[in-house]
Amino acid sequence: MKLIRFGNINEEKPGVELENGKRIDVSAFTDDFNEKFFQTGGIENLQTWLKDNTENCPEITKDTRLGSPFSRPSKIICIGLNYAKHAEETGAEAPKEPVLFFKATSAIVGPNDDLIIPKNSTKTDWEVELGVVIGKKTSYCSEEDALDHVAGYVLHNDYSERSFQIERGGQWVKGKSCDTFAPLGPWLVTKDEIKNPNNLNLWLKLNGETKQSSNTSDFVFNVSEVISYVSQFMTLLPGDVISTGTPAGVGMGLKPQRFLKEGDVVELGIDGLGTSKQHVKNYK
Amino acid sequence: MKLIRFGNINEEKPGVELENGKRIDVSAFTDDFNEKFFQTGGIENLQTWLKDNTENCPEITKDTRLGSPFSRPSKIICIGLNYAKHAEETGAEAPKEPVLFFKATSAIVGPNDDLIIPKNSTKTDWEVELGVVIGKKTSYCSEEDALDHVAGYVLHNDYSERSFQIERGGQWVKGKSCDTFAPLGPWLVTKDEIKNPNNLNLWLKLNGETKQSSNTSDFVFNVSEVISYVSQFMTLLPGDVISTGTPAGVGMGLKPQRFLKEGDVVELGIDGLGTSKQHVKNYK
Repeated sequence: MKLIRFGNINEEKPGVELENGKRIDVSAFTDDFNEKFFQTGGIENLQTWLKDNTENCPEITKDTRLGSPFSRPSKIICIGLNYAKHAEETGAEAPKEPVLFFKATSAIVGPNDDLIIPKNSTKTDWEVELGVVIGKKTSYCSEEDALDHVAGYVLHNDYSERSFQIERGGQWVKGKSCDTFAPLGPWLVTKDEIKNPNNLNLWLKLNGETKQSSNTSDFVFNVSEVISYVSQFMTLLPGDVISTGTPAGVGMGLKPQRFLKEGDVVELGIDGLGTSKQHVKNYK
Repeated sequence: MKLIRFGNINEEKPGVELENGKRIDVSAFTDDFNEKFFQTGGIENLQTWLKDNTENCPEITKDTRLGSPFSRPSKIICIGLNYAKHAEETGAEAPKEPVLFFKATSAIVGPNDDLIIPKNSTKTDWEVELGVVIGKKTSYCSEEDALDHVAGYVLHNDYSERSFQIERGGQWVKGKSCDTFAPLGPWLVTKDEIKNPNNLNLWLKLNGETKQSSNTSDFVFNVSEVISYVSQFMTLLPGDVISTGTPAGVGMGLKPQRFLKEGDVVELGIDGLGTSKQHVKNYK
């Protein structure tokens, strides 16, 4: 099942994209895809409900804005340097255990909303990533059980301001948390549709030219390993996102380096998780 | 005004502690002290409402558990090394600009809840801190306007697992986000009661012995500076917390080092913001 949220910013309603591509409003079933929804078996209950109610759900026109496919989670945990070639391009060694950092949830926007270059930015960069959406409260979880704790998967562009991230005092969160730096979606794809999250092609194009093209089979730490690892340090709540890191091909790693400027268009996608597109604009 | 929340974990209701020390239930006015409450002028409206309704509010018994005095915010942003002597004791130089890191909001507990030492911890440490609670949406805010964006202040113990923070891959969030690592309260004290947040005594005792004793006048970056600074990198939402750093006297800085163990009792306080006490227990 492909969950979506649609409508104006901060007024999004829950919907589903059907196999035939039709999008329907399911706000008759739930008011939102949020922590409570995931925690109370919302995905399974919605699947059951749709068997009898799909025909009665209002259709959403294709020009309706999509928001993030689930409401603001308690946290976005990112895995740093989780593809060996990306670690290399940044000048770092592949890590011996996962590197964790947070991204502010106030950075979340819809999949096709504009990317706003923040004030005083000189090095805004892209990062296509597989996001894992947690389905239930998760603490000290084993690798064996980890996938049982997943609700589904989402496409994420982990936008990063490299000068804020690296040249402004050592902790990465400054360069990861600007508004619009976390486009999520189009869909939250429930896990039954993704046979193996550790074998998905992912790509990103800048102005039509491929910059990132890889496969999650190149992970240093796979999805089960990162879920288990994160859960040793904090409790994951339903709806929380683990963003699993980006492959080689970011602007910082190019020679010469290339960062985003107004007018650029960024498109990205992951097998089975759809595509998104952001137009780049300056802060005004 | 001193806001409190009381009741069982995850079932807290809003209340107020009056000047005479009496605690009252104000759930007839609002269902929670949350983002919407702060954003819609809840503090001023509650003050007005109490003029006519204080007598009708049910009294809360003194043995009722206190929770965090406001509901889970979108983020807790911490300022690292913001007292020169603390930077020195950790072996770091005082920073040239604020060091920022995040703490998971899933770590929040009530002021007198137990501190649970996480599994595999060897270096769980204390940090008394002044927390600034944001009152309205804040982006690119000047230092001059910064205090207009404050709802109030809160006592925070920024518990930190030093081996997770420092020896496990470089980003501090791993050592800051364990469950129970963010006791907040007893009160959210509205800003009208705190004449100068940059001149408050703060202290922490371990088993009755003073370990930290300082004053926020020793800040490297004061409250206005950190609010303005953070808002250059991300949007602060109503209810968000900026924890302004800890003074010298943490366990990591002692010779020999001293970390927490089951049975320890930690007490802390800040002028005007009350005191809190945590009993230390092992994870079971």
